[in-house]
Amino acid sequence: MSVGHTAVTAEPVVSCGEDHDDCGIRDILDRVGDKWSVLVIVALAQGVHRFRELQRAVPGISQRMLTLTVRRLERDGLVSRTVHPTVPPRVDYELTPMGHSLTHLLRSLADWSADHRTAIAESRRRWDATTPAT
Amino acid sequence: MSVGHTAVTAEPVVSCGEDHDDCGIRDILDRVGDKWSVLVIVALAQGVHRFRELQRAVPGISQRMLTLTVRRLERDGLVSRTVHPTVPPRVDYELTPMGHSLTHLLRSLADWSADHRTAIAESRRRWDATTPAT
Repeated sequence: MSVGHTAVTAEPVVSCGEDHDDCGIRDILDRVGDKWSVLVIVALAQGVHRFRELQRAVPGISQRMLTLTVRRLERDGLVSRTVHPTVPPRVDYELTPMGHSLTHLLRSLADWSADHRTAIAESRRRWDATTPAT
Repeated sequence: MSVGHTAVTAEPVVSCGEDHDDCGIRDILDRVGDKWSVLVIVALAQGVHRFRELQRAVPGISQRMLTLTVRRLERDGLVSRTVHPTVPPRVDYELTPMGHSLTHLLRSLADWSADHRTAIAESRRRWDATTPAT
């Protein structure tokens, strides 16, 4: 993705030009919009976890999906993985400083969600009651 | 010897119990994590759009996907649709106040993304260079 599309609007929501592909929001949404990634980051915001602890902290995640998710987060530099040379080896997962910087956003998302879930549910009820199925 | 797993942080990222299903974050991620929804909200943050204008403002979206996306956002109460009784009818789409309240979060996401895209790209490069493919 190329950098350097600086928009000229007074206060754009996203500081990029017409082509939204270039502003990086899609890329970050791939990560932030992934439920498992978010739930793993949320769990790790509480502190260091081993693999099994992480699995318990994220109900419903399979071992394979957790493995994939932490690898992807590690590749992105959001999670670090430390192997301790014990027998058997102990593996700790924790957020990197960059991962920690994302937790504030996730908190805002969760807060917005909590503040608006009732309004959204009501809107959906009204919509479903008044809109004929197509 | 053992690090001690500090699970007792003062400020939890998400203020919900063990069961993350209950804190609503998954539900809102279904909306916020959907790229097309986000890009439509981002476009509408600039002002009222007609359907064709919206389609131009979100490059790559198909007519069918745009129809689905605005219907879903309308159902959620994030977007309102006004049909003007002209010939042919003019249909305007705009954000509701609740939709507007989400744009601040999306701006934060975009800002975070812009601030960290280089670091993430570098982390991925390092990872790909040092991690054997599995």
